[in-house]
Amino acid sequence: MLTETLLEQTKSARQAAQSLATTPTEQKDTLLQKLAQAIRQRQATILEENQKDMVVAQQMVRKGELSESAYRRMLLSPSKIEQIATSVEAVAKLDDPVGQVELGTRLDEGLDLYRVSTPIGVILVIFESRPDALVQISSLSLKSGNAVILKGGREVQRTNAALTAIIRETSTSSDLPVDAVNLVETREEVAQLVQMSEQLDLIIPRGSNALVQHIQKHAQVPVLGHADGICHVFVDADANPEKALNVVVDAKTDYPAVCNAVETLLLHQDHPADSVQNILESLHAAGVELRVCEATRAEFCNGLEIPFNDAADEDWVTEYTDLILSVKTVPNLETAIQHINSCGSHHTDAIVTEHTGHAQEFLHRVDSAGVFWNASTRFADGFRYGFGAEVGVSTCRTHARGPVGLEGLVIHKYLLYGSGQGAGDYGVGKKEFRHEPLPHTLPELDL
Amino acid sequence: MLTETLLEQTKSARQAAQSLATTPTEQKDTLLQKLAQAIRQRQATILEENQKDMVVAQQMVRKGELSESAYRRMLLSPSKIEQIATSVEAVAKLDDPVGQVELGTRLDEGLDLYRVSTPIGVILVIFESRPDALVQISSLSLKSGNAVILKGGREVQRTNAALTAIIRETSTSSDLPVDAVNLVETREEVAQLVQMSEQLDLIIPRGSNALVQHIQKHAQVPVLGHADGICHVFVDADANPEKALNVVVDAKTDYPAVCNAVETLLLHQDHPADSVQNILESLHAAGVELRVCEATRAEFCNGLEIPFNDAADEDWVTEYTDLILSVKTVPNLETAIQHINSCGSHHTDAIVTEHTGHAQEFLHRVDSAGVFWNASTRFADGFRYGFGAEVGVSTCRTHARGPVGLEGLVIHKYLLYGSGQGAGDYGVGKKEFRHEPLPHTLPELDL
Repeated sequence: MLTETLLEQTKSARQAAQSLATTPTEQKDTLLQKLAQAIRQRQATILEENQKDMVVAQQMVRKGELSESAYRRMLLSPSKIEQIATSVEAVAKLDDPVGQVELGTRLDEGLDLYRVSTPIGVILVIFESRPDALVQISSLSLKSGNAVILKGGREVQRTNAALTAIIRETSTSSDLPVDAVNLVETREEVAQLVQMSEQLDLIIPRGSNALVQHIQKHAQVPVLGHADGICHVFVDADANPEKALNVVVDAKTDYPAVCNAVETLLLHQDHPADSVQNILESLHAAGVELRVCEATRAEFCNGLEIPFNDAADEDWVTEYTDLILSVKTVPNLETAIQHINSCGSHHTDAIVTEHTGHAQEFLHRVDSAGVFWNASTRFADGFRYGFGAEVGVSTCRTHARGPVGLEGLVIHKYLLYGSGQGAGDYGVGKKEFRHEPLPHTLPELDL
Repeated sequence: MLTETLLEQTKSARQAAQSLATTPTEQKDTLLQKLAQAIRQRQATILEENQKDMVVAQQMVRKGELSESAYRRMLLSPSKIEQIATSVEAVAKLDDPVGQVELGTRLDEGLDLYRVSTPIGVILVIFESRPDALVQISSLSLKSGNAVILKGGREVQRTNAALTAIIRETSTSSDLPVDAVNLVETREEVAQLVQMSEQLDLIIPRGSNALVQHIQKHAQVPVLGHADGICHVFVDADANPEKALNVVVDAKTDYPAVCNAVETLLLHQDHPADSVQNILESLHAAGVELRVCEATRAEFCNGLEIPFNDAADEDWVTEYTDLILSVKTVPNLETAIQHINSCGSHHTDAIVTEHTGHAQEFLHRVDSAGVFWNASTRFADGFRYGFGAEVGVSTCRTHARGPVGLEGLVIHKYLLYGSGQGAGDYGVGKKEFRHEPLPHTLPELDL
């Protein structure tokens, strides 16, 4: 029964996607502008539903079923709603990722090939308990001409339902398909959707490691995202102490719950002890638990009056997403790179150094979605990268890697404008291909 | 035991990939040039091993275990070997797909972001019984800095082993990792590799529909390729008869065994009957079996003295890869587009028309990797598109769609060049992001 309902839903989403795929940019942008207005106008309703969610969530916090920080992220306010509306307008202003001509080649006189970006189709996105994520993902999907099936946290069920209703009503009133944005509410539904994933074109799971791994294992369509975010900062021998301090403290404490926070600090054994001690003291002062290797204890901890725990083997492969940092001292750059490539999650890793040769080597050889020199791992983010918005961060090695903006929500098709040619007309002793580049604009047709 | 051996093999391939990822363009190209020479020099050995394969294959043909055409494709000759060597040199001449700067953004003064193309990693490619495919795939993998595990047809086992040995020896003698190219020989090994696919980064299965579907179902990593190639040609009401004839006959008869051959001909009911009859007679003369719908029989078959079979429902969703064509007559463009989008395999579809509005509508709305106007579906091919070579044709909706050349064998990473910034330094009342475009060249570092 559930399967049938979901099958109907995916079919409607598929139809919506087909219609959205050929919707002109203006119409999509008008929808988004209207949506921003509708969100502002319906503020009272949204806050009311959010309040109902908060009451239930408060009980969950008391029972220990929900963390305080998740509880705080759920809460909407008039200013938060204004932010959400503004973010929708920001997406409307981005370039349409669909219809971009990526390649033009004259195969022969009167035989012109173009590659044009197109939407992907139907995308399932599973996301955490932030209601603003729902609106952001929906805006990006609509803008890129994809239909989306959304599953948010059950704690914000009512808020999500209210927001989805507004998006669907605005779609209808803008002559766009209502089923472009769809909400499912239970884990059971997600499990079923993953089972029947041949009905989908892409799954983007944001959330727990276990969830992502489960979906990667069972889905039959591409899965975009990351299971772990085990990021590193390597403080080289001749790192500038001030830069090292700023980068390490920011990378750990700016927002420890997210995937681009640092989990392991690598220290070159020859970096000045006073600089290291300054960093460790600052981290401690910021409430960070330090789990250090033997070499770190021997090299740097003497004389420091702050607590240290011993790092165990599993600390090098653990994503804490908390105010905990493992600290390892290494003899050289090579060991640092090898540690990162073997223990990390290929998400984002940084070196702090004034040695340009080391920086180059690190940038070149660390095999991660983001490799940074003298900058915090926390910059790995679609907004900071200038994409306007993001659907998630990917550690995949196909399609999109790193923060994924609108560009990650499109694929392409090849258009060939001929004049009656067959492939058999070309070859040895026959016509020859030219393969000359063409401007990236489709031919103007005389309609 | 097998699993352990394969696990070792994937680990060695992983190490080879890490080394290849940072190998300079020149060194890769030198390897390919040397490989072309080695293939020429070892011609006698290759032909000898190929002869052994041919002897066994001949028995298989007699027993009906191998088709005549597959048997012919296996056969190598001095000129075929020269062709293979030349194709390796052609890959050497292509631009290195690795290290291309795809994006540059100044996030802030002293905080520059670049996106640079990188290899994918370890790729498993399963391919048909053409020994030239082994060399082509290996060349493309080496050029793009990926390690590859190859599984060819068992009929050409000895030929493949000889060619792989030459590639591996040349790699070693060029100071490149020997395990960049690896051969497995049994289906059992492929099944195991798919089971342990988390050791791989991408699987490219070329071959039977059943094989591709099996791998798509069981692999835990992205699979690039196509299961079906159900391509269409739609002859519109005002198609030019000469163009229609050339396109349809080429699309069906140029090479019927491949995925870009047409399987269903759609006829507009108002296209002139004499033009249709000319097409059908030409197809019959070329040995094509015609399976027609009732409307086609009623509209176009009267007075034609050639045999027709009735098309059944499954004909509209069948890939014949043979001299068989299903023929359906439709009342309008809309029905043609809907038929293609629902019954096709989103591979390559063509319209023949002089009506630019219809052409535009078709190009825009047909949801396939290739959508052609007045050109044969057979042009859907990496060589014809000007990519120099291809690893296969993809009907996937992420990463790469259509013929896949070197570009489909790379992904990217983001490099951030900072000066000690933390993300917390930016925000309301603090520093602001600039997000200005930068030239697509990495900064020259003073080493």
